[in-house]
Amino acid sequence: MVTDRTLKTNGWPERYFAVIFTAQRSLSGDDIYDMTADRMILLAQRQPGFLGVETVGGDDGLCITVSYWVDPAAIASWRKHAEHLAAKALGRQEFYDWYRIRVAKVVSERSFIADHIVDTVEPQQNA
Amino acid sequence: MVTDRTLKTNGWPERYFAVIFTAQRSLSGDDIYDMTADRMILLAQRQPGFLGVETVGGDDGLCITVSYWVDPAAIASWRKHAEHLAAKALGRQEFYDWYRIRVAKVVSERSFIADHIVDTVEPQQNA
Repeated sequence: MVTDRTLKTNGWPERYFAVIFTAQRSLSGDDIYDMTADRMILLAQRQPGFLGVETVGGDDGLCITVSYWVDPAAIASWRKHAEHLAAKALGRQEFYDWYRIRVAKVVSERSFIADHIVDTVEPQQNA
Repeated sequence: MVTDRTLKTNGWPERYFAVIFTAQRSLSGDDIYDMTADRMILLAQRQPGFLGVETVGGDDGLCITVSYWVDPAAIASWRKHAEHLAAKALGRQEFYDWYRIRVAKVVSERSFIADHIVDTVEPQQNA
């Protein structure tokens, strides 16, 4: 069953933007990487216009982080955040073989939640 | 150094679309999941209008797959592909606690490649 009930996007605006960050980790700096990545998530969450974030790192070193924002101005502001700039510079020097950052306007969305998850995590919530 | 030299997007159109698929794996069906996921990547790559795909699955079961397409028509066509529909139905029944699919228009892009990667993988290629 595909449903409009959503886990995390309740209250999000009708239109919003995604920043798709894909990266290949190099073999260096694991501890500092984890600390820096966690810190960036924390900082992003405190930014005006932040909606949410999903991040995954695989065993092969490929990482994908998608963050969601109300508008391009919020993204631009986060992009220029001093500590974020420093982390990206460190990332280029230490953490990544390559990365790519794409800003994209979300034009449609649909979702599925298994009944047992709806029942246990989000009872009776309707969009 | 941020560079316009790119690993995978040479020859991509100026404007294109991303399908951001984020999902939480349930605890069942690992073998069939891997087979099905690999098969979907293979099928997507054969679709008209397919540009590329990046996919990561984490130890916690969160998966993010971002695929890139020339236009919404190509995405709609892939969405209606019979084997893809069957795989999604199987995914809802077996593989996922939840998933979300967002279609987004990429409005800007920038990338970084470490010099040692440029030198070894993609010598002297300029955008």
